[in-house]
Amino acid sequence: MATGNKLDFWFSIGSTYTYLTVSRLDQVAARYGATVNWRPFNVRTIMLEMDNIPFAGKPTKAAYMWRDIERRCVRYGLPARLPAPYPLQELEFANRVAVVAEQEGWIKAYVQHTYQHWFAGGHPAGVEPNLSASLVETGQDPERVITLARGDDAAAALVANTEEAKALGVFGAPTFVVDGEVFWGDDRLEDALDWLEHGRLPAP
Amino acid sequence: MATGNKLDFWFSIGSTYTYLTVSRLDQVAARYGATVNWRPFNVRTIMLEMDNIPFAGKPTKAAYMWRDIERRCVRYGLPARLPAPYPLQELEFANRVAVVAEQEGWIKAYVQHTYQHWFAGGHPAGVEPNLSASLVETGQDPERVITLARGDDAAAALVANTEEAKALGVFGAPTFVVDGEVFWGDDRLEDALDWLEHGRLPAP
Repeated sequence: MATGNKLDFWFSIGSTYTYLTVSRLDQVAARYGATVNWRPFNVRTIMLEMDNIPFAGKPTKAAYMWRDIERRCVRYGLPARLPAPYPLQELEFANRVAVVAEQEGWIKAYVQHTYQHWFAGGHPAGVEPNLSASLVETGQDPERVITLARGDDAAAALVANTEEAKALGVFGAPTFVVDGEVFWGDDRLEDALDWLEHGRLPAP
Repeated sequence: MATGNKLDFWFSIGSTYTYLTVSRLDQVAARYGATVNWRPFNVRTIMLEMDNIPFAGKPTKAAYMWRDIERRCVRYGLPARLPAPYPLQELEFANRVAVVAEQEGWIKAYVQHTYQHWFAGGHPAGVEPNLSASLVETGQDPERVITLARGDDAAAALVANTEEAKALGVFGAPTFVVDGEVFWGDDRLEDALDWLEHGRLPAP
């Protein structure tokens, strides 16, 4: 059963594994002929509400996460200086910029640029110099966008996106949603695209 | 760089995703020509020490876990009545039996049978009727094995395995260890086997 060709990609700038996804999503989705909606939300809000604390105070698990990402960056040919600065101090603001970008239609380029500066350049997202550099590379005026992102409308839009994600059953990032089916984690991207194509996960 | 052909498979009977692994491991490892050491440990001890609570009190995440496993059971052609009884009341005892089985050389068959009864039959591991049925199917005398598993030696062996796992950086189950590299989760089985073969993760 084919179920259409639209995949919702829910993410927060601030999630580490999302670096893998934003870097390889275009290529993988194209292989499946899928269209992707980039949907930013505030994963920190949801995780705090759910008391879901994956890495803080868990040094063994945090060290594993960086090594796992490092190995997979090699697999996918992605540049990385690891561990990247973490957690992001300005996670919320980075994603307020993303909702402005979503409204104006340049979200993908901004997110890809800001992750490059964060993971390959060592400069955290949501603050300078990453913020203005990413906006300029996206063809946007930093002063204009930052003013918008500081406004109440951007704050409200991010809250609305987060509520929408939560209502879908999203509890972490990245998450892919296809026809109401939730797939959590960069390593479920292919599952989500298989679901889009077949309405189930076909045998390997 | 080939790094040998031995993979250590660290698991606890009680982990849900481990059902996928114990059911497909033989076939996948054979494809890579790999030999697998089945190593039981007490994941609950390590997770409590690390304050790592993945599902208790997290209903959205727990519901997701069952759905994710269900979809992947379809992919791998595995029978499943989900959600299976969870968490296991007798996790420790189920794994004490596993260390006896490890010492005596029949661990794989016991673990596969007990997971079948738990996930396909709806009978929790570590208690009757699952316990005796799995042992009989493995060709063992339940009374003899249960007496051994109740003894101090089995308790000490499980603690020793758990300490060994922890020293390797294991924090969850299933985990695969290859040449000191840790791969966590059923969905990292192929990564571990790729590492065994290439000493890195090759491009997809």
